[in-house]
Amino acid sequence: MPEVYLDHYAASPVLPQVIEAMLPYYSERFGNPSSLHGWGDAARKAIEESRQKVASLIGASPEEIIFTSGGTEANNTAVKGIAWAAKKKGNHVVVSAVEHFSVLHAARTLEKWGLEVTEVDVDEYGVVHPDKISEAIRPDTVLVSVMTANGEVGTLQPVKEIAEVAREKKIPFHSDAVAAAGHIPLDVKDLGVDALSLSSDMFYGPKGVGALWVRGGLRMMPLLDGGVQEGGRRGGTENVAGIVGMGRAAELAAGEMEERSGRLSSMRDALIEKLPAAIPRLQLTGHPARRLPWNASFVVEFIEGEGMLLFLNQKGVAVSSGSACTSRALKGSHVLSACGIPAEIAQGSLLFSFGPDNGPGDVDYVVEVLPPIVERLRQMSPLYDKFQKAGGWLG
Amino acid sequence: MPEVYLDHYAASPVLPQVIEAMLPYYSERFGNPSSLHGWGDAARKAIEESRQKVASLIGASPEEIIFTSGGTEANNTAVKGIAWAAKKKGNHVVVSAVEHFSVLHAARTLEKWGLEVTEVDVDEYGVVHPDKISEAIRPDTVLVSVMTANGEVGTLQPVKEIAEVAREKKIPFHSDAVAAAGHIPLDVKDLGVDALSLSSDMFYGPKGVGALWVRGGLRMMPLLDGGVQEGGRRGGTENVAGIVGMGRAAELAAGEMEERSGRLSSMRDALIEKLPAAIPRLQLTGHPARRLPWNASFVVEFIEGEGMLLFLNQKGVAVSSGSACTSRALKGSHVLSACGIPAEIAQGSLLFSFGPDNGPGDVDYVVEVLPPIVERLRQMSPLYDKFQKAGGWLG
Repeated sequence: MPEVYLDHYAASPVLPQVIEAMLPYYSERFGNPSSLHGWGDAARKAIEESRQKVASLIGASPEEIIFTSGGTEANNTAVKGIAWAAKKKGNHVVVSAVEHFSVLHAARTLEKWGLEVTEVDVDEYGVVHPDKISEAIRPDTVLVSVMTANGEVGTLQPVKEIAEVAREKKIPFHSDAVAAAGHIPLDVKDLGVDALSLSSDMFYGPKGVGALWVRGGLRMMPLLDGGVQEGGRRGGTENVAGIVGMGRAAELAAGEMEERSGRLSSMRDALIEKLPAAIPRLQLTGHPARRLPWNASFVVEFIEGEGMLLFLNQKGVAVSSGSACTSRALKGSHVLSACGIPAEIAQGSLLFSFGPDNGPGDVDYVVEVLPPIVERLRQMSPLYDKFQKAGGWLG
Repeated sequence: MPEVYLDHYAASPVLPQVIEAMLPYYSERFGNPSSLHGWGDAARKAIEESRQKVASLIGASPEEIIFTSGGTEANNTAVKGIAWAAKKKGNHVVVSAVEHFSVLHAARTLEKWGLEVTEVDVDEYGVVHPDKISEAIRPDTVLVSVMTANGEVGTLQPVKEIAEVAREKKIPFHSDAVAAAGHIPLDVKDLGVDALSLSSDMFYGPKGVGALWVRGGLRMMPLLDGGVQEGGRRGGTENVAGIVGMGRAAELAAGEMEERSGRLSSMRDALIEKLPAAIPRLQLTGHPARRLPWNASFVVEFIEGEGMLLFLNQKGVAVSSGSACTSRALKGSHVLSACGIPAEIAQGSLLFSFGPDNGPGDVDYVVEVLPPIVERLRQMSPLYDKFQKAGGWLG
């Protein structure tokens, strides 16, 4: 049986070149970057080189990069840290309804801290419209946070236009670029954002390391208090090997972006073309054109995603229903709900996320094995009659 | 020239068995523990095994272990999270004056959030006396945080006695065991603590991973909001390889604790015996008997630590002056200051921290190379006359 891993949004193998770069920092180059001796010097140099590489991936200045333990910490630091530091100016934060939970739930914590949060809704494709952001901004707004792209439905957001709205009103604008960074060209100056979150594992670096870029001069309360690491903005002994891995992964992503993106999007497009033809009442979610190169997401009417996942797993295929982060939360996807997809349809969501280990044959295999699984699940389903009578949301 | 690394409190090489355990989780076992397929299952199983091993090191229940990005995150989560969750009960926190900055600075953030903090002072050996904690506790106290052992001067704290004081007054008690865990036997039930912080790198696991144990039922605001990982108490995709490394390191530490402790403390004791005999006006800091097996810390009168570090580095010897976390902060040690050591003496602090790569010859080498360095620095020092006239703090 083939092994077809199509769940790279959940996790990817670390690239061999990245592992190779990391390994010395567990053994002979194990020093603490803060130490005033040769062992410390080697570690410090390695971190600063990685900082340069990560900065380079997004057109930023290295000294404005803060290494974190991942995208979740980067988002929490940005949302809580920027809003809290500005609380003398105001008490209101604007986010979109399709943000990752590390932004949405951080915003809920801000509510517990006495701030107000406006969640801006999206259109059927999951797009956040700049005019809606403009309407949501109030005189006491201190932060806008809208993601660069949504990993669950693939939609790219009009970040540059939203940044213009925020800049006109002089509101700091953070964008969660975790799903996008390393896959589409990003330049913080061109985008006009004030803070950007990245995660190493999304571009085939190690898990447990990420970065937050914050424009120089923007005040922010640190989330992790401690030593003076990361310019006093993030305490804790640096995860040197992880940071080195992230740097190497960023360097590779920058160099190979066009080629990778071409490969991934051609598989994505093949699946988006073939799957609806092979399975009745299956529909693409997210934007049909403006989407991440690695993302093909669907809903299958009258069926539950979990059943498809388990049967696909038996066929050697790994996919997600919604995002991995929510798969064990046993809740419907807030993203699909925000796109106006009814809960009983959203249950049947499928997310295929392509990566470097995939080839065109993987698309063919899915198109071969999935339709009988869907057919079988539908026959088992109490909703089967409803399906046969048709009508329904997907028309 | 020999290479003598005596700065294991700053950083240690990861044990080869630990690296070996981690490696598969970067490549073939790369899954996301939240995923509902075989790749996810393997990662989830690995994390739960590590949780068991870390729990076992401190006599805890595995489900009460929260993996973090290190000791700093564990301390920040405990101090901010427990205090904030209890703010309806009260607004006051008690810490000791010799806590690590990740506790002390987290407490300062609590002050910005409107809480009050009492810093309890220590005796000349850096010991926090339980009666002082008792005096500091008020009706509105919601948290006491006192470390298990101080890494900078080696002093073991009377944690069990402090826990009794806190328990009698029904105040949750957190202890930062980062410097102690893996080196001295710790049992959370026997100690009577309510929360305990650990860091993998202190017992030769990877940097960038730690754990917080929190007694079941104790309410705590998460620091990192996001997905439902770690029982909803810490969002973010798990650093699977790092967690596996921490688990393996905990397992090895538990199995070899007595042997390691014997080896390290015999080198520690040899240095503590020989160095004061070889260098006039050098004195041990911290408690003479109740100290960490790996720690030998001193102050050398009329001299600056940084000069000794740089000359020692030229001789192939790596040590710290104060803790690595503060070495680049260009501030005097708050720990030595709390022990009543005047700032001009505290400048001449030296911390030798032993590890698995050291042998008795390393002690002899230090005793050979350090005295001429001290003599040379003293002759260069503007304080040399003062030194010759003697008197001074060290008597």
